[in-house]
Amino acid sequence: MKAPIRLGVAGATGAVGLEMLRVLEERAFPLERLRPMASGRAESRSVRFAGRDLAVEALSRANLEGLDTVLFATGPAVSREFVPAAAASGAVAIDNSRAFRMDEGVPLVVPEVNPRAAAAHRGIIANPNCSTIQMVLVLKPIHEAATIERVVVSTYQSVSGTGLAAIEELEQQARAVLDGVPTTARVYPSQIAFNCLPHIDEFDEEGASREETKMILETRKIMGAPNLRVAATCVRVPVFRSHAMTIAIETERDLEPARARDLLAAFPGVRVLDDPEAGEYPTQLDATGNDDVWVGRVRRDPSVEHGLWVWAVTDNLRKGAATNAVQIAELLIDGAAD
Amino acid sequence: MKAPIRLGVAGATGAVGLEMLRVLEERAFPLERLRPMASGRAESRSVRFAGRDLAVEALSRANLEGLDTVLFATGPAVSREFVPAAAASGAVAIDNSRAFRMDEGVPLVVPEVNPRAAAAHRGIIANPNCSTIQMVLVLKPIHEAATIERVVVSTYQSVSGTGLAAIEELEQQARAVLDGVPTTARVYPSQIAFNCLPHIDEFDEEGASREETKMILETRKIMGAPNLRVAATCVRVPVFRSHAMTIAIETERDLEPARARDLLAAFPGVRVLDDPEAGEYPTQLDATGNDDVWVGRVRRDPSVEHGLWVWAVTDNLRKGAATNAVQIAELLIDGAAD
Repeated sequence: MKAPIRLGVAGATGAVGLEMLRVLEERAFPLERLRPMASGRAESRSVRFAGRDLAVEALSRANLEGLDTVLFATGPAVSREFVPAAAASGAVAIDNSRAFRMDEGVPLVVPEVNPRAAAAHRGIIANPNCSTIQMVLVLKPIHEAATIERVVVSTYQSVSGTGLAAIEELEQQARAVLDGVPTTARVYPSQIAFNCLPHIDEFDEEGASREETKMILETRKIMGAPNLRVAATCVRVPVFRSHAMTIAIETERDLEPARARDLLAAFPGVRVLDDPEAGEYPTQLDATGNDDVWVGRVRRDPSVEHGLWVWAVTDNLRKGAATNAVQIAELLIDGAAD
Repeated sequence: MKAPIRLGVAGATGAVGLEMLRVLEERAFPLERLRPMASGRAESRSVRFAGRDLAVEALSRANLEGLDTVLFATGPAVSREFVPAAAASGAVAIDNSRAFRMDEGVPLVVPEVNPRAAAAHRGIIANPNCSTIQMVLVLKPIHEAATIERVVVSTYQSVSGTGLAAIEELEQQARAVLDGVPTTARVYPSQIAFNCLPHIDEFDEEGASREETKMILETRKIMGAPNLRVAATCVRVPVFRSHAMTIAIETERDLEPARARDLLAAFPGVRVLDDPEAGEYPTQLDATGNDDVWVGRVRRDPSVEHGLWVWAVTDNLRKGAATNAVQIAELLIDGAAD
């Protein structure tokens, strides 16, 4: 695909869509045309880009025509309807929803981890789940050095992963609690302000949440490791933005924490901040607004022969969603992966 | 020891001390005399008990005389100074600090788990770390049924574990964030409002925090399982009260989640709330103000042959501290363990 690109952004008025516009502008993505689109329930009818107000067009088959690439920041139902239409009209659709991620013919891509997978697309490339993107950047260099056998991950996920309405709900509820008045829960089933909910996406009959299952299946697909053993518990915490996670990693061969730290620091997209005795470890406030997967508290897990504990933090709207999608779009330019 | 008891409460004006007074009153603990004491930095000079204001006396050797039992809700430095003095003057000291927990001659007791250990005391009984108490109530019935080989725990701990000043700091910082003004951090090294800190107590040279090491060593001592393999990451979350944790448990023999749920529900002090598809799982708001270890999200961990995931939530000031200490004091009455 030759730059400049005729680019569409579907779901441009949501939390991820707005971040995509910001990332495109920051990275000076080579645009011939930019068409922001939104479905009927759009939060607003215009968006800012490069100092101008752009009208938001309806997300329709007609408006998907004449584009080279379309970034979809839409939910699975909307993606199922419009992503194939975009592909059929000749564009490459990069979809942030879970709708196509596990489809065999659809590459699931994290550019630092499996960039070559993108080349095999048939018009659709899936952007992984936010927590999965964050985790695989940590796993990849460790896997290459010592072969990962099992991962036990627990997440601390911010409300921005749910969207703008959830950010507003946390703010309103927090204010109510501080003012001593009752809270109202609309977006989440229970109060999220000053409370943690072990509940992200729907539950299956075995008691796992879909977010947990995504972290298992998507990680295997991206890592090309279909038998990798992963266990996940996903928890929503009263934080506005960025996700954190504890990752207990069991490896086949021994890996010194100092060596793991070096490998992580050398891996693109990863930033190590790890001197806890000096008060240095990443938090969600550090990660917010930038594209790094921040890593700290790298240490031995003394409960297994070859084990490491890692604490990882990432802005879920940026590298966890918008930035990764834009990076995939960049991969397609000038045959980088096409 | 014969009731009624001449009881002292040291550190009576702190978060745990105040909760001890509440628990003593609620449980109608058989008192001949109650002497609240505090060190020089006491938050106030009187406390409420059973509808009356009691003067808070200085924590001194003289004031520790003539008591049968003294509950210490003090930090390790103060406990090291006064706990042996209380024991020397003939009382049984029940100490909530970490000062004596790992001493060989000091029982470390969770009444539902190892009540008989209390009988071996030589004047000092240690009250375990809040997160440890919460976890061992979950582990015990599972260990009896299937023999636990390894535990991987990640915590979501509230600020009340740090004390009253931390509760105030979270409140002030949250208000500042909502009002869009800068926050000030005094109690914690970084902002805790709308942020998670993987940092509880001091770090050692290997990069583990003392809280994490406590969860390993204290669990082994209470369970009488010196080789139990435990891995822990402890995280402070912006929640006022109650601690939550994810616990990945690997067992020697298979244990169906449904059977584990039944065993947990039948275990004293544990309450199961586990129907996630119907929106039922415990949160920190559910646990706050009561003595139960709430358990939910009991399910298979598919990444090991015999594994379970559990989500547990407990009021850290009550069962995690005050209630457990009062229960130990109750064990001593009428030779229940003496």
